[in-house]
Amino acid sequence: MRFRSRLGPLSCALVKRPIPSATVQRLPVYLQCLEALAPGVSLVSSEDLAVRAGVNSAKVRKDLSYLGSHGVRGVGYDVERLVFQIQDELGLTKERSVVIVGIGNLGRALANYDGFDQRGFRVVGLFDADPRKLGDLVDGLPVEPMEALADAVLQRGAEIGIITTPAPAAQEVADALAGAGIKSILNFAPAVIKTDGVEVRRVDLSTELQVLSFYLHRRA
Amino acid sequence: MRFRSRLGPLSCALVKRPIPSATVQRLPVYLQCLEALAPGVSLVSSEDLAVRAGVNSAKVRKDLSYLGSHGVRGVGYDVERLVFQIQDELGLTKERSVVIVGIGNLGRALANYDGFDQRGFRVVGLFDADPRKLGDLVDGLPVEPMEALADAVLQRGAEIGIITTPAPAAQEVADALAGAGIKSILNFAPAVIKTDGVEVRRVDLSTELQVLSFYLHRRA
Repeated sequence: MRFRSRLGPLSCALVKRPIPSATVQRLPVYLQCLEALAPGVSLVSSEDLAVRAGVNSAKVRKDLSYLGSHGVRGVGYDVERLVFQIQDELGLTKERSVVIVGIGNLGRALANYDGFDQRGFRVVGLFDADPRKLGDLVDGLPVEPMEALADAVLQRGAEIGIITTPAPAAQEVADALAGAGIKSILNFAPAVIKTDGVEVRRVDLSTELQVLSFYLHRRA
Repeated sequence: MRFRSRLGPLSCALVKRPIPSATVQRLPVYLQCLEALAPGVSLVSSEDLAVRAGVNSAKVRKDLSYLGSHGVRGVGYDVERLVFQIQDELGLTKERSVVIVGIGNLGRALANYDGFDQRGFRVVGLFDADPRKLGDLVDGLPVEPMEALADAVLQRGAEIGIITTPAPAAQEVADALAGAGIKSILNFAPAVIKTDGVEVRRVDLSTELQVLSFYLHRRA
């Protein structure tokens, strides 16, 4: 279920500066921190948000200023309005359709992941090159062959492709997704892929473990 | 396989400033970008690294200065040395033992994830409350009951616990991990957990999708 604001898209009327990519990366983190606040908390200070997000408070204020959100000194930011502004900026008020290629454990986990629905991402197709998986139902969706990918992307209006194949297959799958008209790829395979005209982001699931390791290391 | 330097731990001899948490979070990203460089690339500029990591180059230089790494103007940073310095700072030169609780699709995917081994994280135990899963082998390890957790953590020297249970079970599992002596928790369950004296990080798998959504949104 997505957040519905009573405030309306106030920020849309303002002329805004381009948002730096580093700020874009932090917006989902702020959103997650805001949503983790206790129910009923209606105001949050930049200092509180900074501690939760693991950045400094000057950066929080700077980042949020790109949204046209400035908070009130000594009072803070209106939580509900800030949540709406971030969702609006990230385009989360529009539902996005997603296909997943590579239906092993990770692909199945992502197909079942409740967090996607909550954020407005709808999984509309599951694809795998292994004929033994075809027709398996995962969260109500059947696994389809790669040959069905292009038609499915077109007919179901998919914009985002998630790659959860083994590394050696990732580039070929990325090319197939790009050929099918996918605009953005999220790559979980431990491989670097290159595809012209498509935004590709790679997720390294060990990144957070490395941050934990830093703190264990310093404490020891 | 982890990187082995010919240079030795040069940076250890220097007196260093405390590293801000935001910098710590970016170090794994720089490491990933450096490792994605073509083989044989021995120098990298802060500008190049900045583009790959999605931050600005002044921030890259500032972040790396905490490692005692300053680069050479017009030449850049020595890639091999920088990789070693980041690994050393993150404590990745020491192997860390990890237990995973919740052996559904995501738990299985993480147990099989090659990226952990590559970073020096060794999975030493898999636990689940569901008796039907007990004894299942995942990547050669048997699924064990929750009652075996405390002994296993102690005997196998586990320092990090990964929670991949459904949300309602997450807090109870976190308490069990903390009681067993785990120092750091990585929480994939979509739930906020609180545990005194334990470093907890939550992973929201939809974060990267939200960043992709931003770029789709701007382009449209």
